[in-house]
Amino acid sequence: MGNFDFINNEKLKKQIEFAVTVDEMKNILRRNLVANGSRRENDAEHSWHLAMLAMLFEEYSSEKVDMGRVLKIALVHDLVEVYAGDTFCYDKKGNEDKLERETKAAEKLFGSLDSPQGDEIRALWDEFEAKETPESRYANAIDRIQPLFLNFLTNGHTWKLGDVHARQVFERNDIVRTAAPELWQIVEDIVAESIKKGILKP
Amino acid sequence: MGNFDFINNEKLKKQIEFAVTVDEMKNILRRNLVANGSRRENDAEHSWHLAMLAMLFEEYSSEKVDMGRVLKIALVHDLVEVYAGDTFCYDKKGNEDKLERETKAAEKLFGSLDSPQGDEIRALWDEFEAKETPESRYANAIDRIQPLFLNFLTNGHTWKLGDVHARQVFERNDIVRTAAPELWQIVEDIVAESIKKGILKP
Repeated sequence: MGNFDFINNEKLKKQIEFAVTVDEMKNILRRNLVANGSRRENDAEHSWHLAMLAMLFEEYSSEKVDMGRVLKIALVHDLVEVYAGDTFCYDKKGNEDKLERETKAAEKLFGSLDSPQGDEIRALWDEFEAKETPESRYANAIDRIQPLFLNFLTNGHTWKLGDVHARQVFERNDIVRTAAPELWQIVEDIVAESIKKGILKP
Repeated sequence: MGNFDFINNEKLKKQIEFAVTVDEMKNILRRNLVANGSRRENDAEHSWHLAMLAMLFEEYSSEKVDMGRVLKIALVHDLVEVYAGDTFCYDKKGNEDKLERETKAAEKLFGSLDSPQGDEIRALWDEFEAKETPESRYANAIDRIQPLFLNFLTNGHTWKLGDVHARQVFERNDIVRTAAPELWQIVEDIVAESIKKGILKP
């Protein structure tokens, strides 16, 4: 990095360098487009939108959640992609070594902060991946719903890229069924409407 | 909107339309660039980065804060720009009618949700603007620091646009002095280094 070498406080310098390193989230492109279809969405935009929607849909979580922790999880859940890159959810091959690539990235990124802060942020990422708490199950459900809205609005953009059938969309969104049952109804409605419009294969 | 007319649950339909409306944050460009200097930052990216930095620098808040509420404030603090647009902080004229434009935008945007949810989100925006709680003071301080880092990294991009002198940067960041004193030292260090590098006028 080197840009902030004039800062004498070593701990704070590491935090500022982390703050700048994660700016790279703005340059990591996902497969889906933004709602108006003009370009691909990046990880920073997705993370903000996910957190925003988690706030908006809180009442539909089937379990009571600590919204503060849901938001922290949402904000950091894709940070490892700064080093590991985005993996297309419908790409089988890319998903085979995803865990290994992302674990290495996590060690490098979160290890750049003094403990315990690096460990605390890493724990939020681990929590999201493990889906073993109400907060992480709910965050994962909204993480599925957010691109579903965008895919629907952009004529099934990523479904076409991945030659995706309705069954795969249901599988991908399965956690919504239990974590936010009222939103599962929306998943079913959107899938039905998408098939009707010819933008998703039955 | 009209895209989601097939959804029967009226309340949920409004929430989904809100979720899609605020996607426009990804298309509202700020004056500053992203860290690598390749393009202007948008409101969604800025809001994510602000929330991320608020998490990262919590220990430097001079007052104890409810981080969950800080994050909510960060996520929604620029939503009104979906209708009001971004106002350059160093543009005197644009700032004269900013409050009026943004208040109208708030009524339209937050009024699109059923109460009390629309009022609750609006209250977070009002709280940010009023700077009368520890959470909003801290959020405002980080909202100043975030573009300071980016300006420094991009050779003073917005400072050049606004013909800005060091005094104006100090004024703009003044809330950092009381809300996060250890970060104020960083403001002073970055301003000094920027003058030394010739990217900010003394």
